[in-house]
Parts: sequence; C-alpha cells; structure tokens
Amino acid sequence: MRKIWEPLFMGRQLLLWLVLGGFTGALVGVVVTYFLKLLFWSISVTAHWPLWALGLALPGGGLVTGLLIHYGAPDAAGHGTEAVIRAVHQKAGQINWKVAPIKALATITTIAVGGSAGKEGPSAQIGAAVASFLADVFRFSPDRRRRIVICGIGAGFAAVFGTPVAGAVLGIEVLALGDLWYDMLLPSAASATAAYEVAHLLGLTWNYPQQQAPLPWSFSVVGSMIGLGIAAGLASYVLVLLMEGFHTLSRHLTAERRWWPPLMPFLAGVLLFLLFALVGRVPGGLSLGLLIQALAGHSVGPWMWWWKILFVAITLGLGMSGGIITPLFVIGATLGATLAHPLGLPVADAAAVGMMAVTGAGANAPIAAILMGMEIFGSLLAPEFLLAVIPAFIMIGNHSVYPSQLVRLQKS
Amino acid sequence: MRKIWEPLFMGRQLLLWLVLGGFTGALVGVVVTYFLKLLFWSISVTAHWPLWALGLALPGGGLVTGLLIHYGAPDAAGHGTEAVIRAVHQKAGQINWKVAPIKALATITTIAVGGSAGKEGPSAQIGAAVASFLADVFRFSPDRRRRIVICGIGAGFAAVFGTPVAGAVLGIEVLALGDLWYDMLLPSAASATAAYEVAHLLGLTWNYPQQQAPLPWSFSVVGSMIGLGIAAGLASYVLVLLMEGFHTLSRHLTAERRWWPPLMPFLAGVLLFLLFALVGRVPGGLSLGLLIQALAGHSVGPWMWWWKILFVAITLGLGMSGGIITPLFVIGATLGATLAHPLGLPVADAAAVGMMAVTGAGANAPIAAILMGMEIFGSLLAPEFLLAVIPAFIMIGNHSVYPSQLVRLQKS
Repeated sequence: MRKIWEPLFMGRQLLLWLVLGGFTGALVGVVVTYFLKLLFWSISVTAHWPLWALGLALPGGGLVTGLLIHYGAPDAAGHGTEAVIRAVHQKAGQINWKVAPIKALATITTIAVGGSAGKEGPSAQIGAAVASFLADVFRFSPDRRRRIVICGIGAGFAAVFGTPVAGAVLGIEVLALGDLWYDMLLPSAASATAAYEVAHLLGLTWNYPQQQAPLPWSFSVVGSMIGLGIAAGLASYVLVLLMEGFHTLSRHLTAERRWWPPLMPFLAGVLLFLLFALVGRVPGGLSLGLLIQALAGHSVGPWMWWWKILFVAITLGLGMSGGIITPLFVIGATLGATLAHPLGLPVADAAAVGMMAVTGAGANAPIAAILMGMEIFGSLLAPEFLLAVIPAFIMIGNHSVYPSQLVRLQKS
Repeated sequence: MRKIWEPLFMGRQLLLWLVLGGFTGALVGVVVTYFLKLLFWSISVTAHWPLWALGLALPGGGLVTGLLIHYGAPDAAGHGTEAVIRAVHQKAGQINWKVAPIKALATITTIAVGGSAGKEGPSAQIGAAVASFLADVFRFSPDRRRRIVICGIGAGFAAVFGTPVAGAVLGIEVLALGDLWYDMLLPSAASATAAYEVAHLLGLTWNYPQQQAPLPWSFSVVGSMIGLGIAAGLASYVLVLLMEGFHTLSRHLTAERRWWPPLMPFLAGVLLFLLFALVGRVPGGLSLGLLIQALAGHSVGPWMWWWKILFVAITLGLGMSGGIITPLFVIGATLGATLAHPLGLPVADAAAVGMMAVTGAGANAPIAAILMGMEIFGSLLAPEFLLAVIPAFIMIGNHSVYPSQLVRLQKS
C-alpha cells in the first residue's frame, strides 16, 4: 500500500518545506533589502568625492575593513559566499551569526570608498546566518540545518539579483558542483521566491537593459558565441589566478613576515588609489554604471575588463570585503562589449552573453548562469547563453572563485 | 605547469566535443525533420476521415504496429525514449539501428489512425540510433559511445520541440536523475543546438501561443501555482499507474494466456475506437489542436485531461507506438485550463504552467521542464514554472513514465 499512497507521504514533506523555506526566504528578503538600501545610500554619499578625498578614504576604508574582520569575525575574510560554502560542507551549516552584520558593514565600507567588489556575497552570508539562527531556534538536526542554510543562501541571491529561479539553483550549484541536489530544489525554490517577493514588496528594484531581438542564426554567430565563451573562460581563469596570487602574497606577509593583518586591506586601498589616479575610478565599487553601459549596447574602453579584473583581484585578494558575482557580471559584460566588434556581434547581445559566460565559469555554476541569463534578458538569447556559458565553464577547468566548492566531476 | 596550462588541455576536449556533438546533432536534425514531415503529412491524410473509416483504421493500424514491432524490432515496444534509456544504462549505448526506422514507421501508423501518443519518443530514438551508428563507424570506446548517444537523444528532443537548451538538458536529465552529468553539458549543447538549427533551416517550425504578460504577484497566485503543481503531480501519477496497469494486463495476456502479441495493439485500436464513438476523437493522435487551444486561453472540456490520460494509457500501455512527452504536454495544458477558473488564474497562463508541471513530474526532469517553459513561453512566467514544477516533481515520488530511469536521489 505504501506505493499507492506515496503521494500522501510526499505531500507532507512538500508542505513542511514550503513553509520552512518560504518563512526563511521571507525573513532573508527583509534583511537583505535593508542591507542593500544601506549600501546604495552609502555609495550615493561618496559618489562625488574628489580624488584627493578618495586618497584618504580608500586606505582608511581598507584599514577599517581590516580591523572589523580581524577583531570582529575572522570568518568574514574574502568574499562572503566562500565562507558560507565552507560552513555548509565542514560544519553542517553552523554559522557564527556575528559574521553577517560584520561582513555587511565591512562590505559597505569597502564598496563606498571605491573597493571593487560585489553586493551578493554578504547577501548570501546574511541569508545563511538568518537561516542558521532559525535552525538554532527550532533545534534542527544537522541535516535539516544544512538544508535550511542552503535555502537561506538561495534566498540571498534571489533578492540581490531579482532572479528567483536562478537564485534557487545558484544556491545549490555553488555548493556542490556535479551533484545538483534535486532534493534541495523545493526548499530552495520556496525560499528564493519568498525572498524575491518580499524584496520586491519592500521596494527593491532591479534594472537590467533589455535585449530587443534575437540574433539571426548563422554559422558565424555560432562560432562567435563559442569564441566569446572561450574568451570568457580564460578571463575568469585570469581572475582566479590573480586573486590567488594576491591572497598568497597576503598570507606570506602576515604569516611569515608577521605583518599586522589589517595592514593588508590598507595596502589594497593604497594600490587602488594609485590605480584610480592612473585609469580613473570607473572599475571601482560595484561598477553598475559600467555594466549597464555595456548591456545597453554602448561601447566601453577596450581594456576595461582587464582593469576590472585587476581591481577586483586586489580588493578581494588582499582582504577587503565583498562579493565576487557582481564583479564577474561586470568583467563579462565589458569583455563581451569589447569583443563584439571583432566577433561581428551587436554590443548589447555580446555584453549579455559575456556576462553570463564569465559568471557561469567563475562560479562553476553553468545552469544557474543560463537560467539567470534567461530570467534577466528573456529567452530570445537562450541558445546563445548555452553556446557561450558551457565552453567558458569547460575552459576554466577545475578552478573556481570559490576554493571550498566541492568539485565532484570530470569536466573532460 | 599542468595547472597553469590547464585551459589548453581543456581547449582540446572542448574542440573535440564541439565537432563530434555538432556533427551528430546536424545529422540527427536532418533525419528527425524528415520523420516529422512524413508524420505531419500522414496526419493530414487521415484528418478528415469519417468515424466508420476510423473504425477500420484504428484496429488495423494497431495490428500493423504490432506486426512491425513484434517481427521487426521487439526493442521498439512502448514509447521510444524508454528503450533508449535502457540501452544507455545497460548496453553502453549500443543501439540496434533497425529500431529507428521501424519505430518511426510504427509511430506514424499509430498516430495517423488516431492512437494517442507523442512524436518525440521516436525522435529521441532516431537520434540515439544515428549516434550509435556514428560510434560504430568511428569505433568509439564504450564511454565515448555512451556520450555520443546521449548527444543524439538531446538532439532529437531539441529538433522535435524547437528548444535547444531544454533539449540538451532533457537528454541528460531523463537518463539519470539526481546526477546531472555536468561533463555531458558541452557535447549535448553542441548537438542540440546543431539539430535545432538544421531542423530550422530545413523548414521545420514550432508554433506555441505566446503568453502575454506576467501575473501580478500575490499570496493567492503563489498558492494557486503550488496547488496546480500538486494537481499536476497527481495527474502524472495517475497516468503512470494506468499505463503500468494496461502494460501488466498485456504482459499477462501474452505471456500466460499465450495471446499473439500483435493482438494487443489491435485491442488498443478497438478500445480507442469505442472511446472515439463515446467522447470524440479530440484526445486522439498528437492532440496539438487541443494543446494550442488551451495555451491560447480558450477553455477546453473539463474532463479533457482525464480522457487524454486514458487514451494515452491505452495506446502506449497496450503496445501501440509513440512518445510520451507530447501527451504530457497535452494533459498538463488541459488540466491547467480546467483548473484555471477554480484557482483564479488566466487560462493561458495556467495551461502553460500545467504543461510544464506535468512534464517535469512525469519525465522526472524538473530542470529541463523549467528551461523548456522559459524557452517556449519566455521568462515572464519563470517563477510560476518553478513554483508548480517542483511540487509536481515531488508529488510523483519515485515513479516515472520511464521505468528504466535511474532514480538516484532521495526526493524527501
């Protein structure tokens, strides 16, 4: 009889996780929305500071970030998602709740003064911390705690990007590549949708320029897309190598030369200031202006993608605080815009495809990247996303901006 | 040095599988296109036959189908994808190439006379057979043979539905639930895109009515979507039980009572004719008219989903030939259209969401169903697909229209 009545048993599980996931997501949606509002407000404050003021603010902000992280929550170093991945894999999702506010504050400081980083790492971390807190309150088993924490991460992504489907899948995909955890789909979907809805109700908006028309199909478009994907994979790879390089340098200086750890983000601030003086402040901060410019089909400087890689590697590699996915967006969109002309593609389309390809490769999350492309830009470009994201994902090999990611597959 | 140069190694793999996958897909695209053209032509021939003629044609077509399968290729019984899944899991993708033409012919016979089945099973089987043939020609190793066969299956789906992204993922997902085979993404994507493009160039078109506007979000819409998903999961479950029932009956009669096997599809033809006389021929054949009617927002009969389930269970359970996914589309869309009013949803939206939910549940392929929904209907309904497909996928439990599918996960 068990067989015939299986839908009933399944129905109970369904209800349980709809409620748990939905509740967690709604709570995460509220907290992430206010974090983002605070972040955008702080950016607006510093937006028109002159260069000399940034010369003080950047190293100062770096130092403040360093102090916050070194004394407040050493877990909060680097970009937030990484810490969360480690917690889920090694500690069944046990998160030190203090990490979330400290990380949020450190990220706001980093980005407001011009550090080049993203807003989604702390959002994912806030999501994880809120979920872990709920797991404490309800005294969840380790298995259930891990699940609810993955829900919280997906909710954070969904709220920050305004993409519930991709948010749910991204939460699962960045945690365990090669193992899509089908049993996490329902809780994550409930949680991501709730977070997205709540953020929307609280007035958060997401503006991405829309791509207008599908590309006419031809062998040359197919070849261009694959070429763009390969370039995107290589760009992600360069970012990973550079970030690792700065990180190794930082570890060497603090561990062997006994430098005071908060000096490292201070140093990042000094380096960034010098670069600001050299190439301008456009690749600093979130660079959302740059992203929108490329996606709207306007050309950006031909080396902008490279400057963004360098700025991000310095910011995150030397221990300032922030996420990595918004930077992947910007690197991909500017790379796409730059390659549009030689590849014979419209700038806006190439920027959108490059954005998803760099993201899918860097985060080792190809399905989430394709879904996100379809959610943000509509499905007209779906085949293009597929053609570019997957080569990019292959090219980066077994590397990732998230070193703790469990890579359980053979890509080749 | 291996580490730094990893992109070069990856690049070789990439190129190899782009070429192999693309070539296989292009070939599959050609063959599937001509199969579909022949099928649509044969449907147009019988479209206006009077009921008395169907009274002869249905049992006659059943008998012809039975003879073709019994004497030509016993592997070709049931809906085609199932045979292919078995071949990939148990025989490293070794396919008897004769199965493809016989299956195609049997399916054309079944559907032309009014048997209620789909067009994608044989398409997937053709794709697998073409790929297996190429593997023979190039003397592939078992591992590479299995990969290329999965490519062929994805190509078949992509060409038949006009959805390259979902086709690629569906090929992977129906083969091994719980194990998304990331290493299959590139070959499958190359193959599916090539098949789609070639089919498009050869003049195949796919017309799905477009959903116009996003639904306004509210708790009641969320609840309705989840309710629709649960209903869709239960409907898929009823279909699986009924198909199994007819299949058991058929095995019992042929194995223990020693009935001549081709009599079973003959019997299916007789039963279907009686049902045609009782409720009309609308749920027979591919029922694309019914599908489009529901998706365009017109109401369909309130029990149409049930008649389609019964017709399909008889057709495929008793051994006529055809695919199962087009029927899942029709069952889902008519169920959605019927439930639209009580759930307070627009008919067109409910039909689209119901279609993807029943498909995701029945085929145990939730990601492919969500992607397919986004490819077909645009991404405005993406959150709705998510909210309905996943409950449906949970509700059906560890059942599937494909008994050979390897279900490697805990859903609850």
